Amino acid sequence: MLRVCIIGASGHYRYVLEGLGPRIAVAGIAHGSEGETLHQLQAHMQGRDIHAPRFDDWRHMLDTVQPDIVAVNCHFGDHARISQECLLRGHHVFSEKPLATTLDALAELRQTYARSGKQLSAMFGIRGKPWFQAAHAAVQAGRIGNVRLMQAQKSYKLGARPAFFSHREQSGGLIPWVGSHAIDWLQWFSGASFRSVSAQHSRAHNGGNGDLEVSAQCLFEMSDEISASLSIDYLRPANAPSHDDDRIRIVGTRGILEVRDQQAFLFNDEAASAQTLALPAERAIFASFVDQIRGSAPCMVRAEEAFAATQASLLAREAADSGNKLLF
Amino acid sequence: MLRVCIIGASGHYRYVLEGLGPRIAVAGIAHGSEGETLHQLQAHMQGRDIHAPRFDDWRHMLDTVQPDIVAVNCHFGDHARISQECLLRGHHVFSEKPLATTLDALAELRQTYARSGKQLSAMFGIRGKPWFQAAHAAVQAGRIGNVRLMQAQKSYKLGARPAFFSHREQSGGLIPWVGSHAIDWLQWFSGASFRSVSAQHSRAHNGGNGDLEVSAQCLFEMSDEISASLSIDYLRPANAPSHDDDRIRIVGTRGILEVRDQQAFLFNDEAASAQTLALPAERAIFASFVDQIRGSAPCMVRAEEAFAATQASLLAREAADSGNKLLF
Repeated sequence: MLRVCIIGASGHYRYVLEGLGPRIAVAGIAHGSEGETLHQLQAHMQGRDIHAPRFDDWRHMLDTVQPDIVAVNCHFGDHARISQECLLRGHHVFSEKPLATTLDALAELRQTYARSGKQLSAMFGIRGKPWFQAAHAAVQAGRIGNVRLMQAQKSYKLGARPAFFSHREQSGGLIPWVGSHAIDWLQWFSGASFRSVSAQHSRAHNGGNGDLEVSAQCLFEMSDEISASLSIDYLRPANAPSHDDDRIRIVGTRGILEVRDQQAFLFNDEAASAQTLALPAERAIFASFVDQIRGSAPCMVRAEEAFAATQASLLAREAADSGNKLLF
Repeated sequence: MLRVCIIGASGHYRYVLEGLGPRIAVAGIAHGSEGETLHQLQAHMQGRDIHAPRFDDWRHMLDTVQPDIVAVNCHFGDHARISQECLLRGHHVFSEKPLATTLDALAELRQTYARSGKQLSAMFGIRGKPWFQAAHAAVQAGRIGNVRLMQAQKSYKLGARPAFFSHREQSGGLIPWVGSHAIDWLQWFSGASFRSVSAQHSRAHNGGNGDLEVSAQCLFEMSDEISASLSIDYLRPANAPSHDDDRIRIVGTRGILEVRDQQAFLFNDEAASAQTLALPAERAIFASFVDQIRGSAPCMVRAEEAFAATQASLLAREAADSGNKLLF
């Protein structure tokens, strides 16, 4: 039986709670950032009949529990520092994305990871959604030929954000927090690497959320002359039926694939109109990470992919801040 | 009765043929570019019972007929030179887009136009489609609030292109020919002006069409921190039910508007789900240009807009060629 500790409750700890079972149990929880509350996490655990001690200090928790895995999801600006210490202490790390909110912190974490001999992945769990799984399988099977163009979209409701979202140094900004998901899709679907990025973001009309950006677009040049764009916003109307409107359109030499409205649509030379792809079961990212630790299968998001998506999102943010096109 | 001459048959002369009536008639046709054939134009005229003499030399035609309007739609690289001469000869000009295929030729044409006292518009006729008219009216009425983000799409079948498409100096390339339509939408929907552009285009997998690009993306920074992206491709599957897949998504502070599948969808705080907008009648661009010449109403595409969209498309192409972000 493996043991996982959860640090923080500001991200997608639900991946961990949903991935527990006879192989792995929660052994402790603690806040990771100044002023972070654990109420929601505790309520979710209670609702699922999950019991584990709460510690007031995460280092003390790690000393006491000596977990196999640490799930890090505190304020985003603290991810890298805590994940790094966890690796140095000999724990595997399942981190919220982005892995870091500055390029320097990311480089340090990467170096520490490389020397640690430990496993690491990030919560790019949207890959596991049935519509993304179906779309990815179709691309992998060559059903659109060679990927040439990609357009991705993340559109969220703004809602009431915790106070730390208003501060760049704690939140990292819109592109790394919301955009990094879609940046991960771009590398995952194409298998290509990032070459350059131009980007824009704006804080206009942000509902009083400090320095938080609420709209952004990025244009990535990828290997093999593949072009990828990404639109990100917090402007989805409050009355929309779902929180998010995730999309991707992938244009290939043989056909076009679209993920939209929790469906995957394929249009190629096999049929005279678009086909709606059959949806497989959802893949759970935490269970996949546990598989990797047990040596049974690689995690669905490899550490290198988590680093690359984070790096691309931070470089995109820097391109937007500076107004410059930046090279990888 | 006004008289129009048509120079060339390589573009959308059908706008002219569809816009004839008691106010205006075709008075002559001639090719504009070396090697250009008029067979298709002649067949279309015959099919509509339109009769007008064919001339072997367009200058001789203008000398002989002395038309009020000249419609220019020869090889795209010849548009600017011929339009300029028509203005200098005292004719109004209804030009295929792009107005020019180089920034120098565009600047010269603009100067000639400004001094001419004549009218000019370009064939950005897609604005007149019912779904674009409905969407534009909704944005103008404030139904999505302030525009913040736009994503436009032009996706065409490649099909069998005339030989001149294979030569940059005659065709101008993918972004000016196909993309300029959508670049025009960006300025039209937002009312904003272009500030900078980054872009990419690729000739890979172009089906043996010389230097023709078949995929491209552009990212425009516009006034008021509005961000606009554009995806362009010739990769629409040959078996698709329509030649084109034109789209735009416009994100505002109050709602989101989408044109897709020849419909316009509005999602804002007025209703709990997306509304499909009622479609008005199509607006005909040539009839609108004739209105302007007769002094009854301004043309639906003003000369300044035609110049701005052409300039933005040429600067985007230059950004893609050079790999640099360029300022307007």
